[in-house]
Amino acid sequence: MKKYIAEFIGTMWLVLGGCGAAVLDAAFPNLGIGFLGVALAFGLTVLTGVYAFGHISGGHFNPAVSIGLWAGGRFAGKEVVPYIISQVLGGILGAAILYVIATGKSDFTSIGDFASNGYGAHSPGGYNMAACLICEIVMTFMFVMVIMGATHKKASGAFAGVAIGLALTLIHLISIPVTNTSVNPARSLAPAIFQGDWAMGQVWLFWLAPIVGAILAGGVYKWLLPNNIPEPETLEPHA
Amino acid sequence: MKKYIAEFIGTMWLVLGGCGAAVLDAAFPNLGIGFLGVALAFGLTVLTGVYAFGHISGGHFNPAVSIGLWAGGRFAGKEVVPYIISQVLGGILGAAILYVIATGKSDFTSIGDFASNGYGAHSPGGYNMAACLICEIVMTFMFVMVIMGATHKKASGAFAGVAIGLALTLIHLISIPVTNTSVNPARSLAPAIFQGDWAMGQVWLFWLAPIVGAILAGGVYKWLLPNNIPEPETLEPHA
Amino acid sequence: MKKYIAEFIGTMWLVLGGCGAAVLDAAFPNLGIGFLGVALAFGLTVLTGVYAFGHISGGHFNPAVSIGLWAGGRFAGKEVVPYIISQVLGGILGAAILYVIATGKSDFTSIGDFASNGYGAHSPGGYNMAACLICEIVMTFMFVMVIMGATHKKASGAFAGVAIGLALTLIHLISIPVTNTSVNPARSLAPAIFQGDWAMGQVWLFWLAPIVGAILAGGVYKWLLPNNIPEPETLEPHA
Amino acid sequence: MKKYIAEFIGTMWLVLGGCGAAVLDAAFPNLGIGFLGVALAFGLTVLTGVYAFGHISGGHFNPAVSIGLWAGGRFAGKEVVPYIISQVLGGILGAAILYVIATGKSDFTSIGDFASNGYGAHSPGGYNMAACLICEIVMTFMFVMVIMGATHKKASGAFAGVAIGLALTLIHLISIPVTNTSVNPARSLAPAIFQGDWAMGQVWLFWLAPIVGAILAGGVYKWLLPNNIPEPETLEPHA
Repeated sequence: MKKYIAEFIGTMWLVLGGCGAAVLDAAFPNLGIGFLGVALAFGLTVLTGVYAFGHISGGHFNPAVSIGLWAGGRFAGKEVVPYIISQVLGGILGAAILYVIATGKSDFTSIGDFASNGYGAHSPGGYNMAACLICEIVMTFMFVMVIMGATHKKASGAFAGVAIGLALTLIHLISIPVTNTSVNPARSLAPAIFQGDWAMGQVWLFWLAPIVGAILAGGVYKWLLPNNIPEPETLEPHA
Repeated sequence: MKKYIAEFIGTMWLVLGGCGAAVLDAAFPNLGIGFLGVALAFGLTVLTGVYAFGHISGGHFNPAVSIGLWAGGRFAGKEVVPYIISQVLGGILGAAILYVIATGKSDFTSIGDFASNGYGAHSPGGYNMAACLICEIVMTFMFVMVIMGATHKKASGAFAGVAIGLALTLIHLISIPVTNTSVNPARSLAPAIFQGDWAMGQVWLFWLAPIVGAILAGGVYKWLLPNNIPEPETLEPHA
Repeated sequence: MKKYIAEFIGTMWLVLGGCGAAVLDAAFPNLGIGFLGVALAFGLTVLTGVYAFGHISGGHFNPAVSIGLWAGGRFAGKEVVPYIISQVLGGILGAAILYVIATGKSDFTSIGDFASNGYGAHSPGGYNMAACLICEIVMTFMFVMVIMGATHKKASGAFAGVAIGLALTLIHLISIPVTNTSVNPARSLAPAIFQGDWAMGQVWLFWLAPIVGAILAGGVYKWLLPNNIPEPETLEPHA
Repeated sequence: MKKYIAEFIGTMWLVLGGCGAAVLDAAFPNLGIGFLGVALAFGLTVLTGVYAFGHISGGHFNPAVSIGLWAGGRFAGKEVVPYIISQVLGGILGAAILYVIATGKSDFTSIGDFASNGYGAHSPGGYNMAACLICEIVMTFMFVMVIMGATHKKASGAFAGVAIGLALTLIHLISIPVTNTSVNPARSLAPAIFQGDWAMGQVWLFWLAPIVGAILAGGVYKWLLPNNIPEPETLEPHA
């Protein structure tokens, strides 16, 4: 049970921290943190979450990661669904806390796009659906490749939190203008629920593409460098 | 005695470094570091302080952290008050050094808000008291969760300074527009003393909220993953 | 064979990630990441690539690095050519993926300079050929010095990915205005192929200078601190 | 002899990298890296230099550090002068390389302040001499405290490069507006030689203040937490 709570809190932190930096800080007059600050924030939610909860739940905080690690032979199939449920609920709590804070602004009028992910007319830079689909698949593919490598038994496991967190920062540095960056279905669903409107209509792509990319990465890395260990009951790769 | 001096110097560094970056650099014409630079500065005061003093005092530099670690069973109750006194005095010295430097500017007129924390009309983005209270509680809760996890005996302790320092950077990336970010009563009190005025009138919230968040985190993490070690006389979790 | 695939994917990631951040994000209206964000992105492609693939291929992702490590007695001569071929092909795939994404922008007109490297009239800051040549030689020299040191058997090898990745970030912080920063022939060739025009005409300098700098560094470091180990079949210095 | 070459190259890198980022990139039109990027660059010269050369020379790259470590009982007195000579010469080479690159710009007119350190009228923010003196003493004091702590035998020595490099970044985030940040006499002398003029007239402060701060820190830390080891012939604290 406690590993599910760890995934719940960790995903809450990812959505509150990453989307929070985007909603509250990115465009603050004159001193705003921009895409660079938002990229750093998303990465640090995972870096800190891994060192806080990695030794409890493995520190996935992302349905695509759980599915990718299962495809790569590093995570038990029976754990996938409870992990995803914990992550989705945690993400919703994170967005709810952010909603309460954001609406406490004296000149509040609307939550705007609430850091939702989008394509086409709702891509920050106006990228079409095909470009967004390819981008999310490739980015999640590389994210899970880094996770598979950094948590491999031949790697220095204590560095996994740094490598994985900064991989997410890098992915945001590349792809915020394209899709506002998902690579994480729970991160996409949570703000979309509060925003409703177009965000809910487009959220399918941000479940489909990350899961496809993650499964591909799990399979490729498993072939590239098998871990040669029996399938674990639960994974504790980090920290 | 030496552990109190370590806390004193470390908290001096946190206030001088974090508030100093905010006061001297954030809005420097054209080349200023903005909220992103201030967020990095606060985090690096703790990262560097932990590697400098962690093996002497545990590297708290924050009354809420000392209280939270006590609530989580990781810090001896009899040390809490002397640690807090050391931290408060160190913070005041840090603000005093910053005051001397800041007033040495050729066109100096006023110290302005001096990086004080505030809510309502004194929140940088105009967030109301309820939003500020929730924000500080949640941010300190997560800060202490990261500290409890990163210094747990199952974690790779040498990484604690990185994880905890960057957690503070992340917290600033999220919440500078809301409260100017405290999560640390000693950090809030020190500049408020020099600024006086509204800052002293609002400093209560930045003692109350961080302590509440820290106690909650200590209790939750202790339940989530007990450390199973006898209560230590003093804590040396880092480095 | 698998080590060549690791170099192929890693160099794809370096070009897609680094050039992608430059092309898609650097000058995004108001919130763009600037040279600082691009510098961070290039460094993080290597940092994450090393933790993902370092224990498979050594994590070179750069023909100059393979040649420099050979000159320094750390990499088998017979592996140099297959490594370079893998890196060049991976770089081209990275640029191709970036091309597909970048052309999916609704208001797309031209790929522009596509993050190509240049000198003289095509140097971002208008630096002449001699300055660009010296800059690339010195930067690659120091890059390979850091690699030789961080992967030396007397060093803490697990930190190599951090030191080498951040060395590349530093090199970009210095030299983007001069040459748009190469220090990597595969990184220079790939976007030049898609841009054609002047970029292909100037790419010779970004093969010559990095290779010269790398060979010098390999020789100097080998003399400075020999590794005293028999020439390895393949190198696995990282992670 | 090789340790002196390591200090020579490392200090060349510090001056070329840090001052280079300031001179070439800080104010590049629209995309410049600002003080935040310069702060990161200076820190990364030391971080990367420590992993490259720490196991050869200890990675000082700074006369104040060599003197401070001697005052703290961690560095042999007979090595202090040859280390300082190596550092000063390395710094001059770094500034010379930067001079050659900077003057290769097509619209070059003057090297300007060439990243020199200054006080009073030549402080970037116009801070008076007393503020600048105090600032440099306190910043160097804390820099050497971090070095003494991070290389103490009770610390995790492999992290020293990260902690010390990021300490220098933090110090720049605080004090660039005050003195353009020195804490390193070799870093101050080198650009002043090329600029001449006021910079040579003010360089005395950037030898005096860092050395005073470093000696204080060495003495305080030695009292705070003795290392209990016989005085070493040469120091190899890092990596």
